Amino acid sequence: VTDGTVDLRADFASDNTAPVCPEILAALARANRDAAPSYGADAETARLRERLSVLFETAVEVFPVSTGTIANVLAVSALTPAHGAILCHEASHLVMDESTAPELFTGGARLVTLPGSRAKLSAEVVRDRLAAWPIGDVHAAQPATVAVTQATELGAVYNPAEIAALAGVCREFGLSLFMDGARFANAVAELGCSPADLTWRAGVRILSFGATKNGAMNAEAVVVFDPALARGLAYRVKRAGQLASKMRYLAAQLLAYLEDDLWLRNARRANAMAQRLAAALSAIPGVEVCGAVQGNEVFVCIAPAIRQRLRAAGYAFAAYPVFGPDGCRLVTAWSTEPSAIERFVAVAAERQAV
Amino acid sequence: VTDGTVDLRADFASDNTAPVCPEILAALARANRDAAPSYGADAETARLRERLSVLFETAVEVFPVSTGTIANVLAVSALTPAHGAILCHEASHLVMDESTAPELFTGGARLVTLPGSRAKLSAEVVRDRLAAWPIGDVHAAQPATVAVTQATELGAVYNPAEIAALAGVCREFGLSLFMDGARFANAVAELGCSPADLTWRAGVRILSFGATKNGAMNAEAVVVFDPALARGLAYRVKRAGQLASKMRYLAAQLLAYLEDDLWLRNARRANAMAQRLAAALSAIPGVEVCGAVQGNEVFVCIAPAIRQRLRAAGYAFAAYPVFGPDGCRLVTAWSTEPSAIERFVAVAAERQAV
Amino acid sequence: VTDGTVDLRADFASDNTAPVCPEILAALARANRDAAPSYGADAETARLRERLSVLFETAVEVFPVSTGTIANVLAVSALTPAHGAILCHEASHLVMDESTAPELFTGGARLVTLPGSRAKLSAEVVRDRLAAWPIGDVHAAQPATVAVTQATELGAVYNPAEIAALAGVCREFGLSLFMDGARFANAVAELGCSPADLTWRAGVRILSFGATKNGAMNAEAVVVFDPALARGLAYRVKRAGQLASKMRYLAAQLLAYLEDDLWLRNARRANAMAQRLAAALSAIPGVEVCGAVQGNEVFVCIAPAIRQRLRAAGYAFAAYPVFGPDGCRLVTAWSTEPSAIERFVAVAAERQAV
Amino acid sequence: VTDGTVDLRADFASDNTAPVCPEILAALARANRDAAPSYGADAETARLRERLSVLFETAVEVFPVSTGTIANVLAVSALTPAHGAILCHEASHLVMDESTAPELFTGGARLVTLPGSRAKLSAEVVRDRLAAWPIGDVHAAQPATVAVTQATELGAVYNPAEIAALAGVCREFGLSLFMDGARFANAVAELGCSPADLTWRAGVRILSFGATKNGAMNAEAVVVFDPALARGLAYRVKRAGQLASKMRYLAAQLLAYLEDDLWLRNARRANAMAQRLAAALSAIPGVEVCGAVQGNEVFVCIAPAIRQRLRAAGYAFAAYPVFGPDGCRLVTAWSTEPSAIERFVAVAAERQAV
Repeated sequence: VTDGTVDLRADFASDNTAPVCPEILAALARANRDAAPSYGADAETARLRERLSVLFETAVEVFPVSTGTIANVLAVSALTPAHGAILCHEASHLVMDESTAPELFTGGARLVTLPGSRAKLSAEVVRDRLAAWPIGDVHAAQPATVAVTQATELGAVYNPAEIAALAGVCREFGLSLFMDGARFANAVAELGCSPADLTWRAGVRILSFGATKNGAMNAEAVVVFDPALARGLAYRVKRAGQLASKMRYLAAQLLAYLEDDLWLRNARRANAMAQRLAAALSAIPGVEVCGAVQGNEVFVCIAPAIRQRLRAAGYAFAAYPVFGPDGCRLVTAWSTEPSAIERFVAVAAERQAV
Repeated sequence: VTDGTVDLRADFASDNTAPVCPEILAALARANRDAAPSYGADAETARLRERLSVLFETAVEVFPVSTGTIANVLAVSALTPAHGAILCHEASHLVMDESTAPELFTGGARLVTLPGSRAKLSAEVVRDRLAAWPIGDVHAAQPATVAVTQATELGAVYNPAEIAALAGVCREFGLSLFMDGARFANAVAELGCSPADLTWRAGVRILSFGATKNGAMNAEAVVVFDPALARGLAYRVKRAGQLASKMRYLAAQLLAYLEDDLWLRNARRANAMAQRLAAALSAIPGVEVCGAVQGNEVFVCIAPAIRQRLRAAGYAFAAYPVFGPDGCRLVTAWSTEPSAIERFVAVAAERQAV
Repeated sequence: VTDGTVDLRADFASDNTAPVCPEILAALARANRDAAPSYGADAETARLRERLSVLFETAVEVFPVSTGTIANVLAVSALTPAHGAILCHEASHLVMDESTAPELFTGGARLVTLPGSRAKLSAEVVRDRLAAWPIGDVHAAQPATVAVTQATELGAVYNPAEIAALAGVCREFGLSLFMDGARFANAVAELGCSPADLTWRAGVRILSFGATKNGAMNAEAVVVFDPALARGLAYRVKRAGQLASKMRYLAAQLLAYLEDDLWLRNARRANAMAQRLAAALSAIPGVEVCGAVQGNEVFVCIAPAIRQRLRAAGYAFAAYPVFGPDGCRLVTAWSTEPSAIERFVAVAAERQAV
Repeated sequence: VTDGTVDLRADFASDNTAPVCPEILAALARANRDAAPSYGADAETARLRERLSVLFETAVEVFPVSTGTIANVLAVSALTPAHGAILCHEASHLVMDESTAPELFTGGARLVTLPGSRAKLSAEVVRDRLAAWPIGDVHAAQPATVAVTQATELGAVYNPAEIAALAGVCREFGLSLFMDGARFANAVAELGCSPADLTWRAGVRILSFGATKNGAMNAEAVVVFDPALARGLAYRVKRAGQLASKMRYLAAQLLAYLEDDLWLRNARRANAMAQRLAAALSAIPGVEVCGAVQGNEVFVCIAPAIRQRLRAAGYAFAAYPVFGPDGCRLVTAWSTEPSAIERFVAVAAERQAV
């Protein structure tokens, strides 16, 4: 019983509480043969570059790194001078969850926060802000980069046209567009579009291609669409202490992640579980799903008594006051089982769990 | 045949070309159950803290990270103000192999390099330098930290008395002592002393406890002996993008590394292979082992013709001009097989390999 | 005529367009005798410390520096760790006019902007923001400092009770209070309170004591009320390239500035001229003074036709859209002559100037 | 008597203990008319740019700043990426006297120190170091800039051919050449060559054009020969808190400094006084001048008894152990009077002063 309670606690708290998916674990075992060159000179890393270039339908440069935070901040640091500013949503991971890592790695650039529904930036809001900016005035931080998260931290996705509109504003004012794709797979699964259409074809210069939340073991990829940025990033990666000596184990994970569309299959499953969870919860009096579910995050307002019951059962999901005093976030993952949803819903509905 | 050549190439090039040892791979599989709290709130990370406290015979704080470079630079950043200086050997990893990461993470402190045989700092050399330093003068970078590598980059070890002597000089001048233990296991295996005697009891404040070179998969631990430093380091780890969401997979590796003294068993084997390699090579005309072998690095002068033969056979070991124009470094690992040594020696001696 | 136009242009554009006041220029000449110790070991700098300690009724440490920007950013850097955040008004100089210098000198801390009437922070707004902050959570930048500007960039002053209320919130949450006093003299002149009551007695830890805008020649003083901060700041000042070798010429200016209350006399005059300017402008149809004038900044809405006339006459005052499309800022200085006001008003009123 | 002793103390201690020369003080008074545009948009700053372009026989960009340290570190920061290294003499001001400001402003680049007689770098030493450097290897800090001081900190000058040789090595390896000209005037006066031949024509990209040590009041100029560097430097100057609001008072000083070759006349006088001092001292038993005097620094070995007598008389010159246990530095300035030399020499020789 105690064990059961402990096991429950991390369900729906985040997708980073999920285990590593079996295909990726198996790939680690397969990569574990003999000695191999270190620091990315190995065969797996070379293949990863090729494989991602195929996926994105263009030659990309790729830097496997160990966390989403470092992927994001290395990317923005390659796009933003130290006297520059990064425009991003006020609820973005870059602002809320990465300490002052963006400032550290850019050498002291500034995050400028903008509002927007469901953590989405709109081209209009960005353009209005830039139109009023004293561009070229040395007294003011100079706008250099727009950062979007795909899917956003509040459960929305940008379609290719929205990304292209933002990229258009960037071009107009001489900025770069960066995409934090910690949940890129969930967004692609939701949208059904091609990775290329959602990124470089729409105007994205660098993508953090997330894998950890979707089944990998602390492995992410910085995907660079502009070859001119690659050399500088190589120095940044090393300088960040992110040039893994046994790089092949990061590359092997990411190769497995791409193999047979594992990344999309995992994401589709997580998204489907989110829909299922939302549907089940919306039937419970005292629980209200906040808007459409896009991807694998479900935002719900849960009445205090129900919340208390769920907490007592050991559930550790996060409060999201942005959706009101009862606002909560529930996240599904590649590994979410229907039975886990049933258990959660049963507690919420005060029914006997199966 | 081609495959064989490729496989050979990484042997003896470094210990970071070695695969992950089976016990650690198995531990990853074991850790891979259910959802678990992220960012180090998991059971494995808690146990790792306890286990390392037992090993070091004192309550330690521990931060699992993904590379040796980040372990080192986070440690020195916790000890060195931005107007400070870090005294280290001119051949140290911190100086030669970590780009300007030390400067980045300290906010711009300075590396001041000192000479010393086999990459060892002596208390005398450090004291002489500090005695001549304008301490307290705002015009000069202020000495804050002495950094030593154990075992050193040139194949020597410090015994506990040597560490204590350096720590004494540090105390005298108000500095901290940091130990880069990328090959700490090899040093302990060589010295046969206790980890505590070699670190905090001798005066070390923070240790980079290496595992990757000795069988782990991109996992190192920053071990903090002074609890006053722990809180600040927690912020530094996050800010460096090193707070792994799925921390349990780092902790699980390090736990397996400690279990049944795997870390020491691996190191002992690597050290023994180094002795064996050195013995075999010293019998070959045109090959000269440079001094005593302590740990798992063998420095040898290899006559050009023999070097050329080895290169032609695909061996990718590094030149070490510090030992003269023929100077080379050969590194063994936990996984080095006697047969690999025989193959290498056979090529060097121009005999037919088995 | 051309010269006249050029001369006019800088009037009312800012108080930093004003010349140096004669007493300060005379003090430079007086200080210009013989050789004297450099880097602040001179007699003038020692006297300045004493003189400011008398003025503030407590022993202060003082660092003369060359600009208001560097005074501000050195001060906040002494109060804010690199993983920290500085809460400040969204219209503050720190945010709008100092490039990313705050980020540079803090090693990458974050500016978090808050709203408030006339660029004033209220204790309530700050408390609400801090109450919702995930304090102690390594993922989030940690609030460390509240920065207020006295008088504010939008022409308001804080009274001692307001400062004390802000300091109370700081204490409650473990933050420090910093005051950017680029126009501190104007605020004191407006409020008629003692410098001590407005600063350390109310809870301010460091003050940027401005002089340049009020008659000095690129000379400001960082005034430190907490002796524990002084040593670290000495290193910061040197590291910022702000330890002037001929420090005595900065100190001599600041001594003259304090002598016979020159600082207050200059400020009173500037403030009186602002009142006069506001009164004269408010009588002109198409010109509306925006709220009470506190200090030496006058914010006015000027109808487009009048604005155009003033621009044509060479006036270079700044647009302040925060007061609406017609919003403008006019600044008086210690040197503002009634005749300059008459000329400006005459152009605005389309009367013939004297 | 006490006053007299105090007055004496700063003589020969440094050239930055000298007062401001009358022509520059007069220029400040002349510049002190009416309101003028701030932040360098004034007439004096524009004229300074023109005047320096004439002096250097090429269009230069110029940034007036307040100290030599900031001039140097802004210049190297414009030339050196954060993963880069600056090669400089181990006795250079950049290394010895600027705290870790070089690291701060470069975002964490590294100073790599080289030996050389009288603080001079030779093309050979630089080339040898670069030839052994792992250029392009991300693990190693990448050499970006060579910094020379003219005249050097140990009293030597580089002739144009020596500068050109160093610039040639820079070109060969893709580095930039920076010149710290804190005593540029003394070097030009010594060499009798043109400023252009000693800088950009020989291959210097940025010069710190010193004035403070040679008669100005905390005013130096960063002179940029490569227009591509100017825009970035403008942001750096602001971000360093060095964009003086009343810039005209820096520009006015520098204009006066250039007028009628004041800079050269001052330097010639200081150099002549150095020769006179050296000649007088070399006649005293127990005092030995260390090598040729080039510029305004005199290095002498002074027997302990004589040193003690000079100290007792209040002289505060610096010990320079690089010239042996009796090594001392004596510096003359534009303001050094023959009588001051006589007084000093009299004490050294234990004769009755005049």
